[in-house]
Amino acid sequence: MDEFSLIAKYFKPLAASFAGSLNLSDDAAIISPPENCELVITKDAISQGIHFIGSEDPALIAAKALRVNLSDLAAMGATPLCYFLALMLPKNTSKEWLEKFVGGLKETQEKFSIKLAGGDTTSTEGRISISITAIGSVPTGKALRRSGAKIGDDIYVSGTLGDAALGLELLQKEEENDFFINRYLLPQPRIDLGMALREIASSAMDISDGLVQDLGHICTASNVGAVIYSDKIPTTNNQQLITALSGGDDYELIFTAPPDKKQAIEQISTSLNLPLTIIGNITNGKSLTVLDKNNNIIQIDKKGFSHF
Amino acid sequence: MDEFSLIAKYFKPLAASFAGSLNLSDDAAIISPPENCELVITKDAISQGIHFIGSEDPALIAAKALRVNLSDLAAMGATPLCYFLALMLPKNTSKEWLEKFVGGLKETQEKFSIKLAGGDTTSTEGRISISITAIGSVPTGKALRRSGAKIGDDIYVSGTLGDAALGLELLQKEEENDFFINRYLLPQPRIDLGMALREIASSAMDISDGLVQDLGHICTASNVGAVIYSDKIPTTNNQQLITALSGGDDYELIFTAPPDKKQAIEQISTSLNLPLTIIGNITNGKSLTVLDKNNNIIQIDKKGFSHF
Repeated sequence: MDEFSLIAKYFKPLAASFAGSLNLSDDAAIISPPENCELVITKDAISQGIHFIGSEDPALIAAKALRVNLSDLAAMGATPLCYFLALMLPKNTSKEWLEKFVGGLKETQEKFSIKLAGGDTTSTEGRISISITAIGSVPTGKALRRSGAKIGDDIYVSGTLGDAALGLELLQKEEENDFFINRYLLPQPRIDLGMALREIASSAMDISDGLVQDLGHICTASNVGAVIYSDKIPTTNNQQLITALSGGDDYELIFTAPPDKKQAIEQISTSLNLPLTIIGNITNGKSLTVLDKNNNIIQIDKKGFSHF
Repeated sequence: MDEFSLIAKYFKPLAASFAGSLNLSDDAAIISPPENCELVITKDAISQGIHFIGSEDPALIAAKALRVNLSDLAAMGATPLCYFLALMLPKNTSKEWLEKFVGGLKETQEKFSIKLAGGDTTSTEGRISISITAIGSVPTGKALRRSGAKIGDDIYVSGTLGDAALGLELLQKEEENDFFINRYLLPQPRIDLGMALREIASSAMDISDGLVQDLGHICTASNVGAVIYSDKIPTTNNQQLITALSGGDDYELIFTAPPDKKQAIEQISTSLNLPLTIIGNITNGKSLTVLDKNNNIIQIDKKGFSHF
């Protein structure tokens, strides 16, 4: 199947109801932000052998590729609008693979109200590569940033941490546990949460590289320090503190807010049916300290932690 | 070098003067069109072994990756604004390769007044893949489209056709001819031409797949036919009619305009110092006919043409 037939059969239906896509029939798409809004744009790429094995259900590969980009939009408080897809496929890719992949895109589009606006499909002599550029909108000036955390702010995380890293470990050991494995394979971008936090959070980002590393980015961008309490970190079971502190791929949000926003945040938690847990506070200085339940410092490095 | 050091050292300087990039330090970029403008967005991917060999000067690979996207902006009449880069590199990629690649981006950015706004760098177990999303702006409603060609319009092309296909042939034969090879390796996106044609052309696109195929896209989108005269097609030498009709990678513009715009287009040609040649006319019906100098029909297929 040549590129034009491929686009007509598989991709035009994904773009059909988004006018700016120009039905994928022009050189580019034409996009304007909704009134009084600006655009939030992110681009993430995933590659076979690095981010996925290749033997997974193609629908899951597609869903994850789109969801990790949606998570960046969530982190900025944006409402999903449209996305561009670059799909680089080995020449022997089967029609079945492609159909399942497109099915995964379609399902994810519908779940998160985002449409295909354009892109490129090409063959590769290497392995499967997928690059997505996702575009959302946010009222002008209201995007959540990493840089707004203030001394005294509470530090919150959504959901539970460490599940995805455990899931990956189970997958690699070929053990079965659908809950943890799904948390790795199918991240839940916290779009509704990001939108609800627009006027409430002082800073936000998504946790893709691990709690400690990502909180470090907020501290650097905001020029502040932080203390977090290990026993307050929400986990699914009690054995996963290491992965909760340093495991990646959770795609939960970490955000900060002044203490007077606590009640508003509890209401958001209730209305979204999503735990939002205070795990520590923003401090002066530039250090990030993790305390255990006896207030002893836990020393962190990227690969894990050790008690003193 | 980890991803963060790589971004800090090589990519932040490319984004430094573009405020919407947020210094590549947040989850996404924030972008608004200039006043009374909309955004034109395109995404093209290139892959080692398919679009480039890999042994080329990395600066040229970078330049071409960005230029083919700029050519899509030119085809829509857009002014370049910013771009996103997804770079998938084998783990053994050298610092020298990366430095030259970044140098090629920098030079191209400066030449075409476009800035890096964001992206992703990741390793791959496969070969080099590069995906770029380029964003331009155009006064609202003024983008050039494929769909506006009208019966009786003149059909124009910029520059000369077939040079890039000849260049590729010479490269594959390991013959030397810098002019043709450069036309293949370093396409010239016709940004200034696209912008000048905003109020003048009735349709436009860039020629990446060959004159006949791409004019076919304009005819389909505009629901018209076309006749072109082979002896009017501008070529660098007389031996290259086949490649001029069907060779790809020229990245010249093909556009249509009513006959009363002829003088305005001649003025654009003069001011840009760029040949703009009438090669035929838009007709009723849906067929695309190529006539030789004796007005005999030349039969075209995608691989070339043959006389009756």
